[in-house]
Amino acid sequence: MTDAAILIIGNEILSGRTEDANVAHIARRLADVGVAVREVRVVPDIENEIVDALNALRARYGYVFTTGGIGPTHDDITIVSVAKAFGVAVARNTRVEEHLRTTYGNRATEATLRMADYPEGAALVWHEGDWAPACRMENVFVLAGIPRAMQVMLAACVPLLGQGAPIHSKTLDVWARESDIADGLAAVQGDYPQLEVGSYPYRIDNRPGTALVVRGADAVAVEAAHKAICAMVEALGVEKRAA
Amino acid sequence: MTDAAILIIGNEILSGRTEDANVAHIARRLADVGVAVREVRVVPDIENEIVDALNALRARYGYVFTTGGIGPTHDDITIVSVAKAFGVAVARNTRVEEHLRTTYGNRATEATLRMADYPEGAALVWHEGDWAPACRMENVFVLAGIPRAMQVMLAACVPLLGQGAPIHSKTLDVWARESDIADGLAAVQGDYPQLEVGSYPYRIDNRPGTALVVRGADAVAVEAAHKAICAMVEALGVEKRAA
Repeated sequence: MTDAAILIIGNEILSGRTEDANVAHIARRLADVGVAVREVRVVPDIENEIVDALNALRARYGYVFTTGGIGPTHDDITIVSVAKAFGVAVARNTRVEEHLRTTYGNRATEATLRMADYPEGAALVWHEGDWAPACRMENVFVLAGIPRAMQVMLAACVPLLGQGAPIHSKTLDVWARESDIADGLAAVQGDYPQLEVGSYPYRIDNRPGTALVVRGADAVAVEAAHKAICAMVEALGVEKRAA
Repeated sequence: MTDAAILIIGNEILSGRTEDANVAHIARRLADVGVAVREVRVVPDIENEIVDALNALRARYGYVFTTGGIGPTHDDITIVSVAKAFGVAVARNTRVEEHLRTTYGNRATEATLRMADYPEGAALVWHEGDWAPACRMENVFVLAGIPRAMQVMLAACVPLLGQGAPIHSKTLDVWARESDIADGLAAVQGDYPQLEVGSYPYRIDNRPGTALVVRGADAVAVEAAHKAICAMVEALGVEKRAA
Protein backbone atom coordinates (compact mmCIF):
# COMPACT_ATOMS: atom_id res chain seq x y z
CA MET A 1 0.00 0.00 0.00
CA THR A 2 1.35 3.41 -0.94
CA ASP A 3 1.39 5.98 1.84
CA ALA A 4 1.25 9.75 2.03
CA ALA A 5 1.64 12.71 4.36
CA ILE A 6 -0.16 16.06 4.41
CA LEU A 7 1.73 19.28 5.16
CA ILE A 8 -0.59 22.13 6.11
CA ILE A 9 1.05 25.53 5.78
CA GLY A 10 -0.77 28.25 7.64
CA ASN A 11 -0.56 30.49 10.67
CA GLU A 12 -4.36 30.66 10.67
CA ILE A 13 -4.65 26.98 11.65
CA LEU A 14 -2.00 27.27 14.39
CA SER A 15 -3.65 30.40 15.85
CA GLY A 16 -7.02 28.69 16.07
CA ARG A 17 -8.60 31.26 13.75
CA THR A 18 -9.49 28.60 11.17
CA GLU A 19 -10.28 24.90 11.56
CA ASP A 20 -8.64 22.70 8.96
CA ALA A 21 -11.21 21.37 6.54
CA ASN A 22 -8.87 19.59 4.14
CA VAL A 23 -7.32 16.60 5.92
CA ALA A 24 -10.49 14.51 6.02
CA HIS A 25 -11.27 15.19 2.34
CA ILE A 26 -7.75 14.37 1.18
CA ALA A 27 -7.59 11.23 3.35
CA ARG A 28 -10.87 9.90 1.96
CA ARG A 29 -10.03 10.62 -1.68
CA LEU A 30 -6.63 8.95 -1.29
CA ALA A 31 -8.10 5.93 0.51
CA ASP A 32 -10.30 5.37 -2.54
CA VAL A 33 -7.18 4.76 -4.62
CA GLY A 34 -5.33 2.78 -1.97
CA VAL A 35 -3.10 5.54 -0.60
CA ALA A 36 -3.08 5.73 3.22
CA VAL A 37 -2.33 9.04 4.97
CA ARG A 38 0.20 8.24 7.72
CA GLU A 39 1.12 11.66 9.07
CA VAL A 40 -0.08 15.26 9.06
CA ARG A 41 1.95 18.28 10.06
CA VAL A 42 0.85 21.88 10.44
CA VAL A 43 3.65 24.46 10.23
CA PRO A 44 3.69 28.27 10.23
CA ASP A 45 4.34 30.56 7.26
CA ILE A 46 8.10 30.46 7.90
CA GLU A 47 10.36 29.32 5.08
CA ASN A 48 12.83 27.13 6.96
CA GLU A 49 10.00 25.43 8.89
CA ILE A 50 8.28 24.54 5.62
CA VAL A 51 11.54 23.38 4.01
CA ASP A 52 12.52 21.17 6.96
CA ALA A 53 9.09 19.58 7.30
CA LEU A 54 8.76 18.99 3.56
CA ASN A 55 12.18 17.39 3.30
CA ALA A 56 11.45 15.11 6.25
CA LEU A 57 8.08 14.04 4.87
CA ARG A 58 9.03 13.59 1.21
CA ALA A 59 11.96 11.35 2.17
CA ARG A 60 9.71 9.14 4.24
CA TYR A 61 6.35 8.82 2.49
CA GLY A 62 5.27 7.82 -1.01
CA TYR A 63 3.54 11.16 -1.57
CA VAL A 64 3.29 14.51 0.17
CA PHE A 65 0.37 16.91 -0.33
CA THR A 66 0.87 20.48 0.82
CA THR A 67 -2.07 22.81 1.39
CA GLY A 68 -2.07 26.58 1.72
CA GLY A 69 0.28 29.47 1.10
CA ILE A 70 -0.07 29.75 -2.68
CA GLY A 71 -2.00 33.02 -2.91
CA PRO A 72 -0.71 36.48 -3.88
CA THR A 73 0.21 37.98 -0.49
CA HIS A 74 3.51 38.36 1.35
CA ASP A 75 2.75 35.41 3.65
CA ASP A 76 2.17 33.05 0.71
CA ILE A 77 5.60 31.43 0.58
CA THR A 78 4.88 27.81 -0.22
CA ILE A 79 6.25 27.94 -3.78
CA VAL A 80 9.58 29.51 -2.82
CA SER A 81 9.84 27.08 0.10
CA VAL A 82 9.20 24.03 -2.09
CA ALA A 83 11.76 25.31 -4.59
CA LYS A 84 14.28 25.71 -1.78
CA ALA A 85 13.56 22.20 -0.47
CA PHE A 86 14.38 20.82 -3.91
CA GLY A 87 17.35 23.18 -4.45
CA VAL A 88 15.89 24.80 -7.56
CA ALA A 89 14.98 28.36 -8.57
CA VAL A 90 11.49 29.78 -9.02
CA ALA A 91 10.42 30.66 -12.55
CA ARG A 92 7.30 32.26 -13.99
CA ASN A 93 5.12 30.04 -16.14
CA THR A 94 3.97 32.06 -19.14
CA ARG A 95 0.87 29.95 -19.74
CA VAL A 96 -0.38 30.48 -16.19
CA GLU A 97 0.59 34.15 -16.34
CA GLU A 98 -1.59 34.50 -19.44
CA HIS A 99 -4.42 32.69 -17.64
CA LEU A 100 -4.14 35.07 -14.67
CA ARG A 101 -4.06 38.16 -16.93
CA THR A 102 -7.24 36.92 -18.62
CA THR A 103 -8.91 36.10 -15.28
CA TYR A 104 -7.96 39.30 -13.46
CA GLY A 105 -8.02 41.72 -16.44
CA ASN A 106 -6.85 45.21 -15.53
CA ARG A 107 -6.81 44.29 -11.82
CA ALA A 108 -3.79 42.00 -12.42
CA THR A 109 -0.88 43.32 -10.36
CA GLU A 110 2.61 42.02 -9.79
CA ALA A 111 1.20 40.36 -6.66
CA THR A 112 -1.39 38.56 -8.77
CA LEU A 113 1.17 37.39 -11.28
CA ARG A 114 3.35 35.89 -8.53
CA MET A 115 0.76 33.09 -8.57
CA ALA A 116 2.26 32.07 -11.94
CA ASP A 117 5.61 31.31 -10.26
CA TYR A 118 6.59 27.67 -9.81
CA PRO A 119 9.68 25.72 -8.81
CA GLU A 120 11.79 25.06 -11.92
CA GLY A 121 11.01 21.58 -13.20
CA ALA A 122 7.57 21.41 -11.58
CA ALA A 123 4.82 19.79 -13.62
CA LEU A 124 1.54 21.69 -13.65
CA VAL A 125 -1.53 19.57 -12.91
CA TRP A 126 -4.88 20.96 -13.96
CA HIS A 127 -7.96 20.66 -16.01
CA GLU A 128 -8.40 23.48 -18.47
CA GLY A 129 -10.73 26.05 -16.89
CA ASP A 130 -9.65 25.40 -13.30
CA TRP A 131 -8.93 28.41 -11.12
CA ALA A 132 -5.22 27.60 -11.08
CA PRO A 133 -3.08 24.50 -11.46
CA ALA A 134 -1.65 22.36 -8.70
CA CYS A 135 2.02 21.65 -9.20
CA ARG A 136 4.05 18.51 -8.75
CA MET A 137 7.73 18.15 -7.90
CA GLU A 138 8.67 14.44 -7.82
CA ASN A 139 6.42 12.97 -5.09
CA VAL A 140 5.20 16.35 -3.77
CA PHE A 141 1.87 17.90 -4.82
CA VAL A 142 1.23 21.56 -3.98
CA LEU A 143 -2.45 22.41 -3.39
CA ALA A 144 -4.43 25.48 -2.37
CA GLY A 145 -5.62 25.98 1.21
CA ILE A 146 -9.16 27.12 0.41
CA PRO A 147 -11.19 23.90 0.45
CA ARG A 148 -13.08 24.48 -2.79
CA ALA A 149 -9.91 25.26 -4.74
CA MET A 150 -8.01 22.44 -3.02
CA GLN A 151 -10.66 19.88 -3.97
CA VAL A 152 -10.54 20.83 -7.65
CA MET A 153 -6.74 20.58 -7.64
CA LEU A 154 -6.74 17.25 -5.82
CA ALA A 155 -9.20 15.79 -8.30
CA ALA A 156 -6.71 16.60 -11.06
CA CYS A 157 -3.85 14.99 -9.10
CA VAL A 158 -5.50 11.71 -8.06
CA PRO A 159 -5.33 10.07 -11.52
CA LEU A 160 -1.54 10.56 -11.46
CA LEU A 161 -1.04 8.49 -8.31
CA GLY A 162 0.09 4.88 -8.39
CA GLN A 163 -3.20 3.13 -7.90
CA GLY A 164 -3.38 0.58 -5.11
CA ALA A 165 -6.22 -1.49 -3.77
CA PRO A 166 -8.84 0.83 -2.27
CA ILE A 167 -9.06 0.85 1.52
CA HIS A 168 -12.30 -0.68 2.80
CA SER A 169 -14.00 -0.04 6.10
CA LYS A 170 -17.02 -1.32 7.98
CA THR A 171 -18.54 0.22 11.10
CA LEU A 172 -20.84 -1.22 13.75
CA ASP A 173 -22.43 1.25 16.17
CA VAL A 174 -23.41 -0.05 19.59
CA TRP A 175 -25.03 1.34 22.73
CA ALA A 176 -22.09 0.63 24.99
CA ARG A 177 -19.06 2.20 26.56
CA GLU A 178 -15.69 1.39 25.04
CA SER A 179 -14.68 -0.42 28.21
CA ASP A 180 -17.63 -2.83 27.82
CA ILE A 181 -16.28 -4.15 24.52
CA ALA A 182 -12.54 -3.54 24.97
CA ASP A 183 -11.51 -7.15 25.61
CA GLY A 184 -13.60 -8.56 22.77
CA LEU A 185 -12.32 -5.94 20.36
CA ALA A 186 -8.70 -6.65 21.30
CA ALA A 187 -9.30 -10.33 20.49
CA VAL A 188 -10.61 -9.44 17.01
CA GLN A 189 -7.60 -7.18 16.41
CA GLY A 190 -5.37 -10.09 17.43
CA ASP A 191 -7.08 -12.34 14.87
CA TYR A 192 -6.69 -9.77 12.06
CA PRO A 193 -3.29 -8.10 12.49
CA GLN A 194 -3.36 -6.83 8.88
CA LEU A 195 -6.39 -4.62 9.66
CA GLU A 196 -6.93 -1.53 11.81
CA VAL A 197 -9.60 -2.22 14.42
CA GLY A 198 -10.65 0.95 16.22
CA SER A 199 -13.34 2.15 18.63
CA TYR A 200 -14.67 5.70 18.89
CA PRO A 201 -16.93 6.59 21.81
CA TYR A 202 -19.62 9.28 21.77
CA ARG A 203 -22.79 10.27 23.57
CA ILE A 204 -26.27 10.81 22.16
CA ASP A 205 -28.74 12.37 24.59
CA ASN A 206 -26.22 11.48 27.29
CA ARG A 207 -26.38 7.78 26.37
CA PRO A 208 -22.95 6.27 25.70
CA GLY A 209 -22.35 4.75 22.28
CA THR A 210 -19.28 3.50 20.47
CA ALA A 211 -18.43 3.08 16.79
CA LEU A 212 -16.47 -0.12 16.12
CA VAL A 213 -14.51 0.35 12.91
CA VAL A 214 -12.49 -2.09 10.81
CA ARG A 215 -10.26 -0.76 8.00
CA GLY A 216 -7.90 -2.35 5.53
CA ALA A 217 -7.13 -3.13 1.90
CA ASP A 218 -8.25 -6.77 2.19
CA ALA A 219 -12.02 -6.55 1.63
CA VAL A 220 -12.63 -10.19 2.57
CA ALA A 221 -10.77 -9.82 5.87
CA VAL A 222 -12.60 -6.54 6.61
CA GLU A 223 -15.95 -8.30 6.14
CA ALA A 224 -14.86 -11.26 8.28
CA ALA A 225 -13.55 -9.05 11.10
CA HIS A 226 -16.75 -7.00 11.01
CA LYS A 227 -18.79 -10.21 11.36
CA ALA A 228 -16.57 -11.31 14.26
CA ILE A 229 -17.26 -7.97 15.98
CA CYS A 230 -21.02 -8.39 15.42
CA ALA A 231 -20.85 -11.87 16.95
CA MET A 232 -18.78 -10.63 19.90
CA VAL A 233 -21.27 -7.83 20.57
CA GLU A 234 -24.22 -10.22 20.43
CA ALA A 235 -22.50 -12.65 22.81
CA LEU A 236 -22.06 -9.78 25.28
CA GLY A 237 -25.73 -8.85 25.02
CA VAL A 238 -24.80 -5.33 23.86
CA GLU A 239 -27.50 -3.47 21.90
CA LYS A 240 -26.70 -2.48 18.33
CA ARG A 241 -27.55 1.06 17.27
CA ALA A 242 -29.48 1.49 14.02
CA ALA A 243 -27.38 3.31 11.41
CA MET B 1 6.69 34.28 24.33
CA THR B 2 6.40 30.63 25.30
CA ASP B 3 5.56 28.24 22.50
CA ALA B 4 3.84 24.88 22.25
CA ALA B 5 3.11 22.00 19.90
CA ILE B 6 0.08 19.72 19.68
CA LEU B 7 0.48 15.99 19.01
CA ILE B 8 -2.74 14.37 17.85
CA ILE B 9 -2.73 10.60 18.26
CA GLY B 10 -5.39 8.88 16.22
CA ASN B 11 -5.93 6.70 13.18
CA GLU B 12 -9.44 8.15 12.89
CA ILE B 13 -8.07 11.59 11.96
CA LEU B 14 -5.61 10.17 9.42
CA SER B 15 -8.29 8.01 7.79
CA GLY B 16 -10.62 10.98 7.36
CA ARG B 17 -13.29 9.36 9.52
CA THR B 18 -13.16 12.18 12.07
CA GLU B 19 -12.29 15.86 11.68
CA ASP B 20 -10.06 17.20 14.42
CA ALA B 21 -12.00 19.54 16.68
CA ASN B 22 -9.30 20.20 19.28
CA VAL B 23 -6.53 22.22 17.65
CA ALA B 24 -8.50 25.46 17.37
CA HIS B 25 -9.74 25.23 20.96
CA ILE B 26 -6.30 24.51 22.39
CA ALA B 27 -4.69 27.24 20.28
CA ARG B 28 -7.18 29.86 21.45
CA ARG B 29 -6.98 28.92 25.12
CA LEU B 30 -3.17 28.98 25.01
CA ALA B 31 -3.12 32.32 23.17
CA ASP B 32 -5.09 33.81 26.06
CA VAL B 33 -2.15 33.07 28.36
CA GLY B 34 0.55 34.05 25.88
CA VAL B 35 1.50 30.58 24.63
CA ALA B 36 1.71 30.33 20.82
CA VAL B 37 1.12 26.99 19.07
CA ARG B 38 3.94 26.60 16.53
CA GLU B 39 3.43 23.09 15.19
CA VAL B 40 0.83 20.35 15.05
CA ARG B 41 1.45 16.72 14.15
CA VAL B 42 -1.03 13.91 13.64
CA VAL B 43 0.39 10.40 14.01
CA PRO B 44 -1.19 6.93 13.95
CA ASP B 45 -1.77 4.62 16.93
CA ILE B 46 1.72 3.12 16.56
CA GLU B 47 4.04 3.24 19.55
CA ASN B 48 7.33 4.16 17.88
CA GLU B 49 5.60 6.85 15.78
CA ILE B 50 4.22 8.45 18.93
CA VAL B 51 7.53 8.14 20.79
CA ASP B 52 9.55 9.68 17.95
CA ALA B 53 7.15 12.57 17.39
CA LEU B 54 6.84 13.30 21.10
CA ASN B 55 10.59 13.31 21.65
CA ALA B 56 11.11 15.63 18.68
CA LEU B 57 8.42 18.06 19.83
CA ARG B 58 9.21 18.13 23.56
CA ALA B 59 12.84 18.90 22.84
CA ARG B 60 11.90 21.80 20.64
CA TYR B 61 8.87 23.55 22.16
CA GLY B 62 8.08 24.97 25.57
CA TYR B 63 5.06 22.71 25.98
CA VAL B 64 3.54 19.73 24.17
CA PHE B 65 -0.14 18.81 24.43
CA THR B 66 -1.11 15.33 23.25
CA THR B 67 -4.72 14.45 22.44
CA GLY B 68 -6.28 11.02 22.05
CA GLY B 69 -5.43 7.42 22.79
CA ILE B 70 -6.13 7.37 26.54
CA GLY B 71 -9.26 5.21 26.58
CA PRO B 72 -9.62 1.56 27.59
CA THR B 73 -9.19 -0.23 24.24
CA HIS B 74 -6.22 -2.01 22.63
CA ASP B 75 -5.51 0.95 20.33
CA ASP B 76 -5.25 3.37 23.27
CA ILE B 77 -1.47 3.40 23.67
CA THR B 78 -0.67 7.02 24.48
CA ILE B 79 0.27 6.37 28.12
CA VAL B 80 2.68 3.52 27.37
CA SER B 81 4.16 5.57 24.52
CA VAL B 82 4.70 8.65 26.71
CA ALA B 83 6.31 6.44 29.36
CA LYS B 84 8.63 4.97 26.74
CA ALA B 85 9.53 8.42 25.42
CA PHE B 86 10.62 9.39 28.95
CA GLY B 87 12.25 6.02 29.65
CA VAL B 88 10.04 5.21 32.63
CA ALA B 89 7.64 2.39 33.51
CA VAL B 90 3.85 2.57 33.70
CA ALA B 91 2.27 2.30 37.14
CA ARG B 92 -1.32 2.18 38.31
CA ASN B 93 -2.52 5.15 40.33
CA THR B 94 -4.62 3.86 43.22
CA ARG B 95 -6.56 7.09 43.62
CA VAL B 96 -7.68 7.09 39.99
CA GLU B 97 -8.36 3.35 40.17
CA GLU B 98 -10.69 4.00 43.08
CA HIS B 99 -12.36 6.82 41.11
CA LEU B 100 -12.90 4.47 38.14
CA ARG B 101 -14.30 1.71 40.35
CA THR B 102 -16.76 4.20 41.81
CA THR B 103 -17.70 5.58 38.37
CA TYR B 104 -18.06 2.25 36.59
CA GLY B 105 -19.36 0.15 39.50
CA ASN B 106 -19.67 -3.52 38.64
CA ARG B 107 -19.01 -2.78 34.97
CA ALA B 108 -15.36 -1.97 35.82
CA THR B 109 -13.14 -4.44 33.95
CA GLU B 110 -9.38 -4.75 33.65
CA ALA B 111 -9.75 -2.71 30.44
CA THR B 112 -11.48 0.06 32.40
CA LEU B 113 -8.83 0.08 35.10
CA ARG B 114 -6.04 0.47 32.54
CA MET B 115 -7.21 4.10 32.44
CA ALA B 116 -5.66 4.45 35.91
CA ASP B 117 -2.20 3.69 34.49
CA TYR B 118 0.26 6.57 34.16
CA PRO B 119 3.95 7.00 33.42
CA GLU B 120 5.91 6.78 36.68
CA GLY B 121 6.59 10.27 37.96
CA ALA B 122 3.67 11.85 36.11
CA ALA B 123 1.72 14.53 37.96
CA LEU B 124 -2.04 14.21 37.74
CA VAL B 125 -3.86 17.40 36.82
CA TRP B 126 -7.55 17.58 37.60
CA HIS B 127 -10.36 19.19 39.42
CA GLU B 128 -12.12 16.83 41.78
CA GLY B 129 -15.19 15.46 40.01
CA ASP B 130 -13.71 15.56 36.50
CA TRP B 131 -14.17 12.49 34.33
CA ALA B 132 -10.47 11.66 34.58
CA PRO B 133 -7.26 13.58 35.16
CA ALA B 134 -4.86 14.86 32.55
CA CYS B 135 -1.29 13.97 33.32
CA ARG B 136 1.92 15.93 33.07
CA MET B 137 5.46 14.70 32.49
CA GLU B 138 7.87 17.66 32.52
CA ASN B 139 6.65 19.89 29.66
CA VAL B 140 4.21 17.33 28.23
CA PHE B 141 0.48 17.34 28.99
CA VAL B 142 -1.59 14.28 28.06
CA LEU B 143 -5.23 15.06 27.20
CA ALA B 144 -8.25 13.08 25.98
CA GLY B 145 -9.27 13.09 22.33
CA ILE B 146 -13.00 13.55 22.84
CA PRO B 147 -13.47 17.32 22.71
CA ARG B 148 -15.67 17.67 25.79
CA ALA B 149 -13.28 15.65 27.97
CA MET B 150 -10.25 17.37 26.44
CA GLN B 151 -11.62 20.83 27.23
CA VAL B 152 -12.18 19.97 30.89
CA MET B 153 -8.64 18.59 31.17
CA LEU B 154 -7.10 21.59 29.39
CA ALA B 155 -8.89 23.99 31.71
CA ALA B 156 -7.17 22.25 34.64
CA CYS B 157 -3.77 22.48 32.92
CA VAL B 158 -3.81 26.12 31.80
CA PRO B 159 -3.20 27.59 35.28
CA LEU B 160 0.02 25.55 35.48
CA LEU B 161 1.58 27.16 32.40
CA GLY B 162 4.11 29.93 32.62
CA GLN B 163 1.94 32.93 31.94
CA GLY B 164 3.03 35.26 29.18
CA ALA B 165 1.45 38.31 27.68
CA PRO B 166 -1.80 37.32 25.97
CA ILE B 167 -1.75 37.33 22.17
CA HIS B 168 -3.95 40.04 20.70
CA SER B 169 -5.53 40.13 17.28
CA LYS B 170 -7.60 42.56 15.20
CA THR B 171 -9.40 41.74 11.98
CA LEU B 172 -10.69 43.97 9.17
CA ASP B 173 -12.98 42.35 6.60
CA VAL B 174 -13.09 43.91 3.14
CA TRP B 175 -14.89 43.26 -0.12
CA ALA B 176 -11.78 42.65 -2.16
CA ARG B 177 -9.58 39.91 -3.52
CA GLU B 178 -6.31 39.26 -1.75
CA SER B 179 -4.41 40.41 -4.82
CA ASP B 180 -6.08 43.85 -4.62
CA ILE B 181 -4.56 44.53 -1.20
CA ALA B 182 -1.40 42.39 -1.38
CA ASP B 183 1.09 45.22 -1.91
CA GLY B 184 -0.40 47.43 0.80
CA LEU B 185 -0.52 44.55 3.26
CA ALA B 186 3.12 43.66 2.60
CA ALA B 187 4.06 47.26 3.41
CA VAL B 188 2.26 47.06 6.77
CA GLN B 189 3.99 43.75 7.56
CA GLY B 190 7.30 45.43 6.74
CA ASP B 191 6.52 48.25 9.19
CA TYR B 192 5.60 45.80 11.98
CA PRO B 193 8.01 42.86 11.77
CA GLN B 194 7.15 41.79 15.35
CA LEU B 195 3.53 41.04 14.33
CA GLU B 196 1.92 38.44 12.10
CA VAL B 197 -0.03 40.14 9.32
CA GLY B 198 -2.19 37.67 7.40
CA SER B 199 -4.95 37.67 4.80
CA TYR B 200 -7.64 35.02 4.38
CA PRO B 201 -9.84 35.10 1.29
CA TYR B 202 -13.41 33.82 1.10
CA ARG B 203 -16.58 34.21 -0.94
CA ILE B 204 -20.05 35.23 0.21
CA ASP B 205 -22.77 34.79 -2.42
CA ASN B 206 -19.91 34.50 -4.91
CA ARG B 207 -18.58 37.94 -3.95
CA PRO B 208 -14.88 37.87 -3.01
CA GLY B 209 -13.96 39.05 0.46
CA THR B 210 -10.77 38.94 2.50
CA ALA B 211 -10.09 39.01 6.25
CA LEU B 212 -7.02 41.10 7.11
CA VAL B 213 -5.67 39.90 10.44
CA VAL B 214 -2.97 41.29 12.73
CA ARG B 215 -1.72 39.19 15.66
CA GLY B 216 0.91 39.67 18.31
CA ALA B 217 1.69 40.12 21.99
CA ASP B 218 2.24 43.91 21.68
CA ALA B 219 -1.31 45.30 21.97
CA VAL B 220 -0.27 48.83 21.04
CA ALA B 221 1.48 47.65 17.88
CA VAL B 222 -1.50 45.44 16.96
CA GLU B 223 -3.80 48.46 17.22
CA ALA B 224 -1.43 50.65 15.20
CA ALA B 225 -0.98 48.06 12.46
CA HIS B 226 -4.75 47.53 12.28
CA LYS B 227 -5.22 51.30 11.82
CA ALA B 228 -2.55 51.31 9.12
CA ILE B 229 -4.46 48.55 7.30
CA CYS B 230 -7.71 50.52 7.60
CA ALA B 231 -5.99 53.60 6.14
CA MET B 232 -4.43 51.54 3.34
CA VAL B 233 -7.81 50.05 2.45
CA GLU B 234 -9.48 53.47 2.41
CA ALA B 235 -6.73 54.90 0.21
CA LEU B 236 -7.36 52.08 -2.28
CA GLY B 237 -11.10 52.77 -2.31
CA VAL B 238 -11.82 49.22 -1.14
CA GLU B 239 -15.18 48.70 0.58
CA LYS B 240 -15.13 47.51 4.18
CA ARG B 241 -17.46 44.69 5.13
CA ALA B 242 -19.64 45.14 8.22
CA ALA B 243 -18.66 42.66 10.92
